[in-house]
Amino acid sequence: MSLDSSRLAPMANAIRALSMDAVQAANSGHPGMPMGMADVATVLWSKFLKFDASAPDWADRDRFVLSAGHGSMLIYSLLHLSGYAHPTLQEIKDFRQLGSPCAGHPENFLLDGVECTTGPLGQGLAMAVGMAMAERHLNAVFGSDLVDHRTWVIAGDGCLMEGINHEAIGLAGHHQLGHLNVLWDSNAITIDGSTDLSTSEDIPARYRATGWHVVECDGHDFAEIEQALAAARDETSKPSLVVCKTVIGKGAPNKQGTSATHGAPLGEDEIAAARTELGWDHPAFEIPQDVLDDWRSTGEAGKQTHGEWKERLSGHAKADEFQRRMAGDLPDLSSIRSEFAEWLSGDQKVATRKASEMALAVINPVVPETIGGSADLTGSNNTKAGEIGPFTADDYAGRYLYWGIREFGMAAAMNGMALHGGVNPYGGTFLIFSDYCRNAIRLSALQQQRVIYVMTHDSIGLGEDGPTHQPIEQVMSLRLIPNLNVFRPADIIETAECWQLALEDKDTPSVLCLSRQGLPQLRHEGEMLSEKGAYRLKSAEAARKVILIATGSEVHLAINVAKALEEEGVGADVVSMPSMELFEAQDDAYKADLLPDVSPSEVLRVSIEAGATLGWERYTMANGLQIGLDRFGASAPAPDLFEKFGFTVDAIVPQIMNKLND
Amino acid sequence: MSLDSSRLAPMANAIRALSMDAVQAANSGHPGMPMGMADVATVLWSKFLKFDASAPDWADRDRFVLSAGHGSMLIYSLLHLSGYAHPTLQEIKDFRQLGSPCAGHPENFLLDGVECTTGPLGQGLAMAVGMAMAERHLNAVFGSDLVDHRTWVIAGDGCLMEGINHEAIGLAGHHQLGHLNVLWDSNAITIDGSTDLSTSEDIPARYRATGWHVVECDGHDFAEIEQALAAARDETSKPSLVVCKTVIGKGAPNKQGTSATHGAPLGEDEIAAARTELGWDHPAFEIPQDVLDDWRSTGEAGKQTHGEWKERLSGHAKADEFQRRMAGDLPDLSSIRSEFAEWLSGDQKVATRKASEMALAVINPVVPETIGGSADLTGSNNTKAGEIGPFTADDYAGRYLYWGIREFGMAAAMNGMALHGGVNPYGGTFLIFSDYCRNAIRLSALQQQRVIYVMTHDSIGLGEDGPTHQPIEQVMSLRLIPNLNVFRPADIIETAECWQLALEDKDTPSVLCLSRQGLPQLRHEGEMLSEKGAYRLKSAEAARKVILIATGSEVHLAINVAKALEEEGVGADVVSMPSMELFEAQDDAYKADLLPDVSPSEVLRVSIEAGATLGWERYTMANGLQIGLDRFGASAPAPDLFEKFGFTVDAIVPQIMNKLND
Repeated sequence: MSLDSSRLAPMANAIRALSMDAVQAANSGHPGMPMGMADVATVLWSKFLKFDASAPDWADRDRFVLSAGHGSMLIYSLLHLSGYAHPTLQEIKDFRQLGSPCAGHPENFLLDGVECTTGPLGQGLAMAVGMAMAERHLNAVFGSDLVDHRTWVIAGDGCLMEGINHEAIGLAGHHQLGHLNVLWDSNAITIDGSTDLSTSEDIPARYRATGWHVVECDGHDFAEIEQALAAARDETSKPSLVVCKTVIGKGAPNKQGTSATHGAPLGEDEIAAARTELGWDHPAFEIPQDVLDDWRSTGEAGKQTHGEWKERLSGHAKADEFQRRMAGDLPDLSSIRSEFAEWLSGDQKVATRKASEMALAVINPVVPETIGGSADLTGSNNTKAGEIGPFTADDYAGRYLYWGIREFGMAAAMNGMALHGGVNPYGGTFLIFSDYCRNAIRLSALQQQRVIYVMTHDSIGLGEDGPTHQPIEQVMSLRLIPNLNVFRPADIIETAECWQLALEDKDTPSVLCLSRQGLPQLRHEGEMLSEKGAYRLKSAEAARKVILIATGSEVHLAINVAKALEEEGVGADVVSMPSMELFEAQDDAYKADLLPDVSPSEVLRVSIEAGATLGWERYTMANGLQIGLDRFGASAPAPDLFEKFGFTVDAIVPQIMNKLND
Repeated sequence: MSLDSSRLAPMANAIRALSMDAVQAANSGHPGMPMGMADVATVLWSKFLKFDASAPDWADRDRFVLSAGHGSMLIYSLLHLSGYAHPTLQEIKDFRQLGSPCAGHPENFLLDGVECTTGPLGQGLAMAVGMAMAERHLNAVFGSDLVDHRTWVIAGDGCLMEGINHEAIGLAGHHQLGHLNVLWDSNAITIDGSTDLSTSEDIPARYRATGWHVVECDGHDFAEIEQALAAARDETSKPSLVVCKTVIGKGAPNKQGTSATHGAPLGEDEIAAARTELGWDHPAFEIPQDVLDDWRSTGEAGKQTHGEWKERLSGHAKADEFQRRMAGDLPDLSSIRSEFAEWLSGDQKVATRKASEMALAVINPVVPETIGGSADLTGSNNTKAGEIGPFTADDYAGRYLYWGIREFGMAAAMNGMALHGGVNPYGGTFLIFSDYCRNAIRLSALQQQRVIYVMTHDSIGLGEDGPTHQPIEQVMSLRLIPNLNVFRPADIIETAECWQLALEDKDTPSVLCLSRQGLPQLRHEGEMLSEKGAYRLKSAEAARKVILIATGSEVHLAINVAKALEEEGVGADVVSMPSMELFEAQDDAYKADLLPDVSPSEVLRVSIEAGATLGWERYTMANGLQIGLDRFGASAPAPDLFEKFGFTVDAIVPQIMNKLND
C-alpha cells in the first residue's frame, strides 16, 4: 500500500473520534482501548490485513479478532471506515442502543466482519487459535491456491492474564501456527489501576518459552508498528506476539494513561480537549472526505486479491467440495442413516461412549470435515474413530487433535474452527469438566456454532473416581443454556440418533452426555425417534397409572421399574427423553399425547435421572415424583453407588406405590 | 533427620507396594504417579515436611497438597506409614470402596492430613497458593512465633497444562510467596501418551518468567532430591518449582515410563515382576517392621517442634484471638446486627452491589479475619470497604486483594485460604464469570468451606454490555450445586441479611448475586426474614387469587404487579425468595403457609425472575406461570431491556389475568 504516515495519523484519529463520541453518546462503553490501539489498527488494516469490504464472507480473507471485546468501538470504526455495508454512521450513533448492530461487545451474529463474539476475556485469542488451526488444515487439504490467510488478534492485558491464554498459546506454539499474529495492547493498565497491582510477569519471556516469536514496537510510531507487523508476518514457522507499547486513551490529554479511560465516557470537556490535542476539529460523527477516502482505499488491494482468488477457484478441481464445506452443508448422509438403521436389528450392550465411537467410525469416513479430539482422554472419551490421523505441525491434514489437558482452550478453539468454517469440530472430556469450559460452551450457543461436545462419564455411573469426577448438576445446568442441545442417550440406538441430530443442526451446538458403563440396547424398531426429544418407549399394559420419564442410563432402570409396577397391576408408560430442548420444540398435541394434562391422582408422573432434580418438576409437575440425586456422590464401584443412592427397582417402586396410595 | 539413603529406598518402595497392591485390589485407580513420585515424597516427608501425625490440626504444620489428586494412593500411603490415625491398613485395602476414607481422589472431609480435595487438575496448586497467602497474612498479623510454615505441592504435567496454573503461579510470583514449593512430577507422560503429543513448552522458563525460582533434580536420586528441596526451602523471596525428573510407574519393569501405568491396575504378573525389580518380597499390604519404624520416626521431629510451638502459644498475648480464628469461630456480631437493624428505619434506594459495600463497611472492622478482593473489578463489585488496605509482598497484613483478571485462580485460592483457616475470604467478579470459576465454586461446596462469592451485575439489568455479560442461566445453575447458598437479595435490607447469613454459615459457601442497578428499599420492619429463604413480603388485600414469588431486582416489580392486580380486585401475595436453599430447609408447615397446596384455579402461583425459568416449576407448579428469560439478552440500557423482555407491570398483569380466566 502506498499510504504514508502523514495520512495514517488522521485515519487513526478518525477511529479515536468515532470511539470517544459514540461512547459519549451512549453514556456507556470503553473508549480507552480503541484510542490506545487506533494507530496499530490503522497500520494493520491499511497495510497488512487481507480483506474485501464488499465480500465479508470471502473464504480466504484474513481473520481479525478483537479479543479485548470491550473495545468494540475499534472494530465498529474499522468496519465503517473501510467500507463494510454495516455499521452505518447511524448505527454507530446508536452504539449500545436496542436494535443497533453496534452492541456493547462485538457479536458475530449482528455484523459481517465480526468474526467472533468477544468480551469474556481470553476467549477471542483462543478462538483465533482455532481459526488458525482450521486455516492450516484447509490449506493442507485444499492447497494454497484456495486457502492461505492469516489470523490477526488484538488482545489486552486481561486476555493475557486469564488462564485460557496459557492453554491457547500452548496449542499455538506446539502446532507452530506461523499464520497467527497476536497484537498485544500493552498499556500496563487494568480496571483496578496499574498492572503492577496484580502481576509481575515477563510476558514476552513466557511467550518465548511457549514457542512463540516475539517482537516489540512503540504502538504510536507508525514506522515501528509497520516493521513489527512485517516481522510477525514474515515469521511463518512460529506464531508471533507483537508487543505494542501503548497509552490507554491516547489523545485524551488529561486522562490518557489511566484506568479512567477504560470503561467510562470521557466527558464533554475531555472530549473537547482531545479534539484540540489531536488536531481534530470536526464535529462529532463527522469524518472528512479525504480521511474517508484514504480509509476506503485500504480495501482496494484486497478486492483485487479476491478477484484473483475467485479466478483460481473457478477452475479448481476441488471447488465444489470446498464451497460445500465453507457453506456448512453436509455431504449425503444416507449411507450413515442406513448403517444406523441396521443397528436396530442387533442387540448390543455397550457404554454410550463406546456407541459414540461406533457412530463416529461410521460418520468420519463419510463426512470429511469432522475434526475430532479429546482433552487428553482419548481412550476414555472414545473420540478417535474412523481411521483419522493426528493433526500435527508436520501434517495439518490430520483430523485428530490431541488437545492436551486444556478443556477451556479446546472448547474455545473449537468455536474458532467452526466460525472459520470448512470444518466441523467435536471434542471430548469428562462431563464434569464441562465446568472448566462452560463459558466457551455458552459462546458456542450464543454464536450459533455447530460444535459438538462429547462428554463422557456422565453420572455416578463412573464409579470409583468419586465426587470430584461425578456430575450431579452438570446435565441440568447445561440444559439451562439457551440454544444448546443437551443429549443424554439411553443406548446405542439413541446415541447414533443424537450424533446425527447434532451433526445436522447447523446453528446450534450440542453436548452428548455419555455413560462410562455398559447399557443394554433398548430399541429394536423405529427410526430417529430421538428427533422429537422424547418418545414413548414402552406403553402401559395394565390401566395406565404412572408415566416414568427417564434419560440415559436410567431408561433401562425405568423399564425395569415399569415391569415391576405392571406385576403389581399398575400400568406404566416409559418415556425416554434424550433431549429436553427438542421435546420443548414439539407441538402441544405431541406433548399432550406423551404427557397428558391430568392430575397426579389419575396418572402419576415420575422422573428418573441420576442427577439434580430441580427442573424435573416441569415434566413431573411439582406433586409428581422426582427420583434423582441432590447431593455429591461418593467413591465406590458404580453398582454400589446406584444401590446406595436409590437407583434400583426395589428402592423406587415403593416410593411410587406410596405416592399412588396417598 | 538422620535417615540415610539406604533406609530411604525401602521406605519409598513401601509406598510403591501399597499403591500397586491397593489399585490392584480395587481393580481401579492410578498406580503410575505414586510409584513415580515415591522417592521424592519419601525425602519430603522424612526430611522437610513439618508435621505431627498425632495432631493433624496443628495450626502451624506445613501444608501438603497433592494437586495431582488421581495419585491418591501416594497420600494414603504417606499418612498410613507416618502414623496418622487414618487410614488404617484395612481402609487402604478398601481403597475406592463404599465407606472407605481412601476414596478415588483425596477428600479433605474424609481424612485428617488431606488438606484439600484434589482431582480436578490445576486446582490443588491454586489452592496451595491461597494457603501460602493465608500463611503469610497470619504470619504478618500474629508473628513468626505462631505462624511460620510452608506449603508443599506435588503437581503433574496435567496441573501445569491447565489454564488455572497460569493464574495461580502469576499470583504466587507477584506476591513473592517464598514459602510455597511446587514439586513437579515431570514424567513426560499424559493419559494420551507422550507429552510431545500436545505440548512443547519450556516449563522452567515459563515459571522463571513468572517470578519463580526453579531447581531440578533426578526424582529417583535421593541426594539430588534432598539438595533440590533444600534449595527450594532456602529461597524465601520467591516461590520455587522443583522439577523432579521421574519415571511414571517406576519399579514396574515392563510398563514403567508409559501411560499404561497411569490409570489402570498393573495386573498380577506385572506386580510380581515389580516385586522382583524392587527387591520387595513381602506379601501384599505387608510392611516389614523396620521399614514401618523408619516411617514412624519421620514424625518425631515435628512432634517436638509442635511441643515447642504449644509452649510459645500458651504464653502468647494473641493466643485467644489466634485460636478463635483458627477454629473458624466468629467474633461477637451484635454490633453488626444492630447496625443492620437500624437500616430498616431508613429508606435507601441503592444497587445491591452498593448495599453489599455498605454491609462490608460494617462487617470488616468487626471481623478482622475477612480478606476481600476482586478479579479486577473493585469499583464495580464494590468489594473494598471498611478501610482495609492491600495485601502485597511488602505488606502481607493487608486485607484487600487485587486478584487481577483471574477468576478461576481467585476462587481456588480462596478455597485454599479457607482451608488453611484463620481467614474468611470473599471475592468478587461479574456473575457471568461464575462460569469461569464454576468448578472452584463446586469445590468450595464439596469441601464445605466458608467462601463468599460477591457476584455483581446479576441479570440483563446490567444493560449495555450485552449478552456476553448478562447472566441468564447462572443463578439457576448455581442453585443446582449441592451445599451452596445462592442468595439473590432484593434490596439493602436483604443484602445485609444475606451477608450475615453467609458469614455465619461455617460449612457452606455462598454466592451473593447482586444488581448493578439501583433498587428501592422494600422492607422497613422484621429482622432477619431472609433466614428462612423466603417470606411473605406483602399479603393480599382482596381475596387471594395469586402468589407472586420473586427474587432480587424483580421483587419490587412483583410488588407493583401485585398493586395492579389488587386494583383489578385480584388479591395477590408477594413472596420474596432470596434463597431457594434456605427455603427448602424449612419445615412443611412454614412452606405450606407461604405456598399453600391448592390448585392453580384457586391460587395461581407466578414466579418472576429475570433469568432461566427451568426450575421455577418447583414453586409455581407446572401449570403456574413462570416469568423469566430463556434466551440470551441484548445490548441496550437496562430499562429498555426490561421492557423488551417483558419485565413490566403492563406485560405481566395480562398474562396473569389470562391464566386466571382460563
